[in-house]
Amino acid sequence: MPELRENPATKRWVIIATERARRPEDFKKDIPAAPGIPPFDAKCPFCEGNEALSGEEIFAIRAAGTKPTEKGWQVRVIPNKYPVLVPPVKGSPVEPKRHKSGIYLHMDGIGKHELVIENPAHNKCIATMSVEEVSSIIRAYHERYIALDWDPSYKLVTIFKNHGPRAGASQQHAHSQIVATSFIPLHERFAIEAAQRYYDELGRCVFCDIIKGELADKERLVMRNEKFVAFVPYAAMLPYEVCIIPFKHSTTFADLQPQDIESLAEILRGVLSKFYHGMNNPDLNYIIRTVPHHSAGEPYYHWHIQVLPRLTTPAGFEIGSGITVNVALPEESAKFLREFKL
Amino acid sequence: MPELRENPATKRWVIIATERARRPEDFKKDIPAAPGIPPFDAKCPFCEGNEALSGEEIFAIRAAGTKPTEKGWQVRVIPNKYPVLVPPVKGSPVEPKRHKSGIYLHMDGIGKHELVIENPAHNKCIATMSVEEVSSIIRAYHERYIALDWDPSYKLVTIFKNHGPRAGASQQHAHSQIVATSFIPLHERFAIEAAQRYYDELGRCVFCDIIKGELADKERLVMRNEKFVAFVPYAAMLPYEVCIIPFKHSTTFADLQPQDIESLAEILRGVLSKFYHGMNNPDLNYIIRTVPHHSAGEPYYHWHIQVLPRLTTPAGFEIGSGITVNVALPEESAKFLREFKL
Repeated sequence: MPELRENPATKRWVIIATERARRPEDFKKDIPAAPGIPPFDAKCPFCEGNEALSGEEIFAIRAAGTKPTEKGWQVRVIPNKYPVLVPPVKGSPVEPKRHKSGIYLHMDGIGKHELVIENPAHNKCIATMSVEEVSSIIRAYHERYIALDWDPSYKLVTIFKNHGPRAGASQQHAHSQIVATSFIPLHERFAIEAAQRYYDELGRCVFCDIIKGELADKERLVMRNEKFVAFVPYAAMLPYEVCIIPFKHSTTFADLQPQDIESLAEILRGVLSKFYHGMNNPDLNYIIRTVPHHSAGEPYYHWHIQVLPRLTTPAGFEIGSGITVNVALPEESAKFLREFKL
Repeated sequence: MPELRENPATKRWVIIATERARRPEDFKKDIPAAPGIPPFDAKCPFCEGNEALSGEEIFAIRAAGTKPTEKGWQVRVIPNKYPVLVPPVKGSPVEPKRHKSGIYLHMDGIGKHELVIENPAHNKCIATMSVEEVSSIIRAYHERYIALDWDPSYKLVTIFKNHGPRAGASQQHAHSQIVATSFIPLHERFAIEAAQRYYDELGRCVFCDIIKGELADKERLVMRNEKFVAFVPYAAMLPYEVCIIPFKHSTTFADLQPQDIESLAEILRGVLSKFYHGMNNPDLNYIIRTVPHHSAGEPYYHWHIQVLPRLTTPAGFEIGSGITVNVALPEESAKFLREFKL
């Protein structure tokens, strides 16, 4: 019998299709996790030494004495060459003007689209980097998040990663993206409202309750350290979805404390390493889910990272109904990931 | 400058990313539209003659004198062998019982999952069928829609098609699917609410207004006939998205009149043929968007078919923010499809 499970934070029902259930082996790619990629590619705009190919840097973590847009960096943030949104012209109003054409509304595509080059080497990914290297990536995320979050031109800052072509990556060199939008998407608003309603009713953060439940239950836990826990959500949207969340109630990603960065790096690297070695490096996305600046400090939301391996193809039903069909039992996925030794 | 466009029916903003804009040629596959597929495949459970491989038929359009689960059919509807939801046990309550485990809710995966085998031949698709053959498919959709829509165990009936592997199809033989769910997904509820609000404010159906606007504007029209019009939505979610909608206000797909079936078949076949011949048979989904049984007759919704070619890969940003990025200008997509001669 298939099971319907509700995500208490978003109120969405997910189909856990046990009749189609598949085991970890069924999802593994035939390609080995570590194919022979060279550490440097002369044509790659993200490789160290090719800084001139990419564009002026917005932020970097680099060795003392080195200059922007030169060698010697650990992480670089640059503007996306093909931005989906562009910054406002100086002096334009903070709120982009809505224009009407007939019954339609449109506005300028205001926003900011940045790229985070995660490492100087062409052949590394988070799973194969050191915790220190991953910490630098998170430091860069956090710095840019705070800068964009404070800018009144932007309402929401989305940090995400596309790893592999099935996850939408067009460049092989490890990178993440940051998109700041001039509006709050409905999708995000609905998620925030659902969390707010839970708080209204029970006086507690739904995510804090989820953490408490998962720690007690144990069967969906993947790994934990002092500050963070990773688990497969009860109503995981997709096979092997993982949620990484701070134990301590913390509304927005802006709240991440410098002393917690290494701990986050350790757990993010741990989860991605389990995928990389245990499932032959599947394509995946991760997204830092947070709230708009004006909701900072609210008791009802709790930032987290949603890791979504792209092991199945969303089809007409998912697109049409918005219901996702998960062909892996969350408890089994968690068991596999938890027990896979690095 | 990228542009943000709002869909007045769903209130969702879409990014029209002109900086990344691509032309029809860029989307064309290298594979020709008509590869050498045989008309019969001995192993295909959907081929005429292989009825024993698929399962007892629920409905069929077949020649007089032929028997169920034998040769002689034009369209067959069968249960999906790997259903994502299953019918309720006889005598169980109409409303599936919600169960609590800790803070989580779950319920039995009640619903119905059927397959529509569109044609006896292994190598046909809607684009290469006759209008009469496509009419039979729509007749089957309509019959099954009405039967499931009237069943109090189900709240919403979603009819959709996955064409090609990138669209989630696992069988080559042309087929569509019908999923009846025991609940109304949030996604659908939000869409209905948005249409309802438009009606509250203006006293008109948003879709009727869209049709009126598109007919006046002309630049996003793809084709039309006596009863239906096909156009690229102003805020198309994806490149080359097409909406097929009846001119006359008609709330639910149940309202489709027998005398209008041929007209719908003609326009659906026309649109899919333009994709097949003009863009080398891209993978695509289509979904019949309609309302739950209890909303039949309401003045604010208007059923339609959403055709979604799968030409790009949704990545972390789309998944994270729910905002879609369309890299094709709707007016250009419509012009290409409109001017492509069959």
